[in-house]
Amino acid sequence: MAKAIPRREEDYSLWYNELVKKAGLAENSPVRGCMIIKPYGFSIWEKIQQQLDLMFKNTGHENAYFPLFIPKSYLSKEADHVEGFAKECAVVTHYRLKNDENGKGIIVDPEAKLEEELIIRPTSETVIWDTYRNWIQSYRDLPLLINQWANVVRWEMRTRLFLRTTEFLWQEGHTAHATKNEALAETKQMLDVYAEFAEKFMALPVIKGVKSDSERFAGAVDTYCIEALMQDGKALQAGTSHFLGQNFAKAFDVKFTNQEGKEELVWGTSWGVSTRLMGALIMAHSDDEGLVLPPNLAPIQVVIVPIYKGEAQLEEITLVADRIKAKLTGQGISVKFDRRDTHKPGWKFAEYELKGVPVRIAIGPKDLENSTIEVARRDTKAKQILPLLDCEEYIKSLLNEMQINIYNKAHHFRAENTHQANSYDEFKEILEKKGGFIYAHWDGTNETEDKIKEETKATIRCIPLDDKIEPGTCMVTGKPSSRRVLFAKAY
Amino acid sequence: MAKAIPRREEDYSLWYNELVKKAGLAENSPVRGCMIIKPYGFSIWEKIQQQLDLMFKNTGHENAYFPLFIPKSYLSKEADHVEGFAKECAVVTHYRLKNDENGKGIIVDPEAKLEEELIIRPTSETVIWDTYRNWIQSYRDLPLLINQWANVVRWEMRTRLFLRTTEFLWQEGHTAHATKNEALAETKQMLDVYAEFAEKFMALPVIKGVKSDSERFAGAVDTYCIEALMQDGKALQAGTSHFLGQNFAKAFDVKFTNQEGKEELVWGTSWGVSTRLMGALIMAHSDDEGLVLPPNLAPIQVVIVPIYKGEAQLEEITLVADRIKAKLTGQGISVKFDRRDTHKPGWKFAEYELKGVPVRIAIGPKDLENSTIEVARRDTKAKQILPLLDCEEYIKSLLNEMQINIYNKAHHFRAENTHQANSYDEFKEILEKKGGFIYAHWDGTNETEDKIKEETKATIRCIPLDDKIEPGTCMVTGKPSSRRVLFAKAY
Repeated sequence: MAKAIPRREEDYSLWYNELVKKAGLAENSPVRGCMIIKPYGFSIWEKIQQQLDLMFKNTGHENAYFPLFIPKSYLSKEADHVEGFAKECAVVTHYRLKNDENGKGIIVDPEAKLEEELIIRPTSETVIWDTYRNWIQSYRDLPLLINQWANVVRWEMRTRLFLRTTEFLWQEGHTAHATKNEALAETKQMLDVYAEFAEKFMALPVIKGVKSDSERFAGAVDTYCIEALMQDGKALQAGTSHFLGQNFAKAFDVKFTNQEGKEELVWGTSWGVSTRLMGALIMAHSDDEGLVLPPNLAPIQVVIVPIYKGEAQLEEITLVADRIKAKLTGQGISVKFDRRDTHKPGWKFAEYELKGVPVRIAIGPKDLENSTIEVARRDTKAKQILPLLDCEEYIKSLLNEMQINIYNKAHHFRAENTHQANSYDEFKEILEKKGGFIYAHWDGTNETEDKIKEETKATIRCIPLDDKIEPGTCMVTGKPSSRRVLFAKAY
Repeated sequence: MAKAIPRREEDYSLWYNELVKKAGLAENSPVRGCMIIKPYGFSIWEKIQQQLDLMFKNTGHENAYFPLFIPKSYLSKEADHVEGFAKECAVVTHYRLKNDENGKGIIVDPEAKLEEELIIRPTSETVIWDTYRNWIQSYRDLPLLINQWANVVRWEMRTRLFLRTTEFLWQEGHTAHATKNEALAETKQMLDVYAEFAEKFMALPVIKGVKSDSERFAGAVDTYCIEALMQDGKALQAGTSHFLGQNFAKAFDVKFTNQEGKEELVWGTSWGVSTRLMGALIMAHSDDEGLVLPPNLAPIQVVIVPIYKGEAQLEEITLVADRIKAKLTGQGISVKFDRRDTHKPGWKFAEYELKGVPVRIAIGPKDLENSTIEVARRDTKAKQILPLLDCEEYIKSLLNEMQINIYNKAHHFRAENTHQANSYDEFKEILEKKGGFIYAHWDGTNETEDKIKEETKATIRCIPLDDKIEPGTCMVTGKPSSRRVLFAKAY
């Protein structure tokens, strides 16, 4: 049999780690906190990238590439920014190795010390705004709508595959605008792009909101986010879009001449999602048999497994399989026909369940006789025998149905695990017994937020952007609150 | 007018640099030796990436991602490899910054020193073969055909945009095989893929060959390469494919059980091309007016410029332009209609010449009257008036013709600038007066190669893989030579 993974109920965290490794998604590298993204995991990331990249381009953005290194002094130019990132920076201090004269092997050459240390980018606002100073002179140069796909490094003490790694892959959009309103509109537009991507492609319902002070991006005026609920009742921030105001324009002296010939500071935004999305995708939908992938992001959407005795039967099945494969491929569906003779059908079934392939077609001798195929769907594990004729149409609509079903299931789970708390005691009880999202009143102060975090480990995930405005009183201090905010324990 | 660039004749090197900057391809960053790839330059790189990625996948390769960091000790495991790369490594020694107690701003926290320094990958053989040890147990796990798109860092003392930068983008394929022959076949297959890409997409004729000892990749048994000739008569290595033998398998103890149940060392290859290809593309075809892009890699293949007086005329032209655009787009041709009113037609003409857009369509009042358009091709600068009706078919075939024409022009240039030298004096004279590729006899020793390099700055670009075997005597030592090899001064 293929590799089994622990059950979610037993140990959710171990289930996740083993699933990531055994499904061939990623593994730990010899370098502490860095991961190796394995081919199957990377092929899912590629689907994520392609779709997002298309959505960015459709909203007028272009890709570019900025350096991996940031001079130490740049990081310090925006006061909040350095405060937020200095504690977790990988620092390059030398540019050469040499053979040790005492035969101790290869050592850092002390003579090759950099005059100014270089930081591996934890995010690129500083180096990009330093560049924008030269790119922007007049209102005609605005808006500047740029994105980059890159690796970044934040020296994390506790890491987990995809969810929190020292090096991770991401995209970071950095835009510059002539007016505050335009920058705000861009910030919200990209939040909407992320939400649409999460819901339509990842099949992941999200709540859009704005962060409280303590969770705001270091250097932003406002951080918008999308928040999703995982199966263990913990929240996961799946994307952020920052309204930077004129903070980085001030720090890097980026001004433009407006249509009236007057000089003004430029307005900015930045927004990003990362390989963390892989963690969200895995944790939101998968089960005890392995990964469950929404068809829209599955690198293999349909796998065909032959069940046969002897070479002649295999050849007969291959004829049928190739025909199905050609027809499905012609409709833009990705199909794998696994005719390896090194593994038995049962092993293959378990393997593709582990890997979350949405649809499995099995073809055996009886199917040959009856002109049928067996179709199994990964999400519900339902199986049925279908006539071979026109099975492509059925499979195509099945994939669409599964995409919706996986979303609906996650949506239902979130509804079941979203609560309102009307007192701090109730809040703590829900947290302890049920977990999930909790809507509660808060007085808007950092002190109260800190106290709640310290006492319960729950944080404010966001102040939702919905219109459910309902005045009340803070569950901790009794002070007035204009609306409920979203709390949860979070990844 | 748009920005003019120097003429090639005046100063080829300055022409190149100014072209790269003014056409919006790339610029220097504040970090020494690192470049910023600007949106237009990056969009060409994306086309290169997409096509190569497709070719890699069509030959059975999958993408993955390995860490940016390599532990210092890993680099030392293969003796030649460390010798080749240690002198140009960016070294991470610390993982935290802090506020200086003496108020000197932000400093590296001396308490956050790494136990073992990390090298920013200059190439990833070490960390990948360390991983392959765990991925490969049996012949069933082979071949392993993996590629990654990544940034790498080599601390270069003299850098030039795209051609030689401290950080650059590339792809690196790393494959593992059960037999020597299979690994050799893979090495050559990927060389062929590179050559096909260069010729069909970059319109760049290349010579395939194998490197002499001194130019071989550090850690390889043999390095295969493609070599192209630039307009200044210098050669540029456009891609390499390495047969690693069992060197990295030995260094990282990567063994497999063969079909007879016996343990064997794994055979390896690696192969890569980088953003250096951008430099080759620019230098091979461009002229004094700017970039000349082969249509197959042009992000904008056709630009439409309206020539109008007043809003009403612009609207009329827009109707025609939109129709042409829709038809061309429908045929998979990328079209930009530039109706900006902030720039005059002449400015736009110069701008798109600078940016190398293959076909320019101008539509003015006379064209409206006569149902015509003016079509200008970038490569020959020929212009003609065409009937509007069915102009799409003409433009489509024009793009194909231009792709071939640009290749032919480069091929012709190479033929004109390829010489044979039958004595060392003749060799030196050709080098001095004409430059270009020189075929000459060489005795096969490092000493002679070094002497030639020292005295003439020319190097052996490769021992060609063609079948022009013609025995002779070394032009320097008079010792026997089995065939002529390819010399040139090189980038």
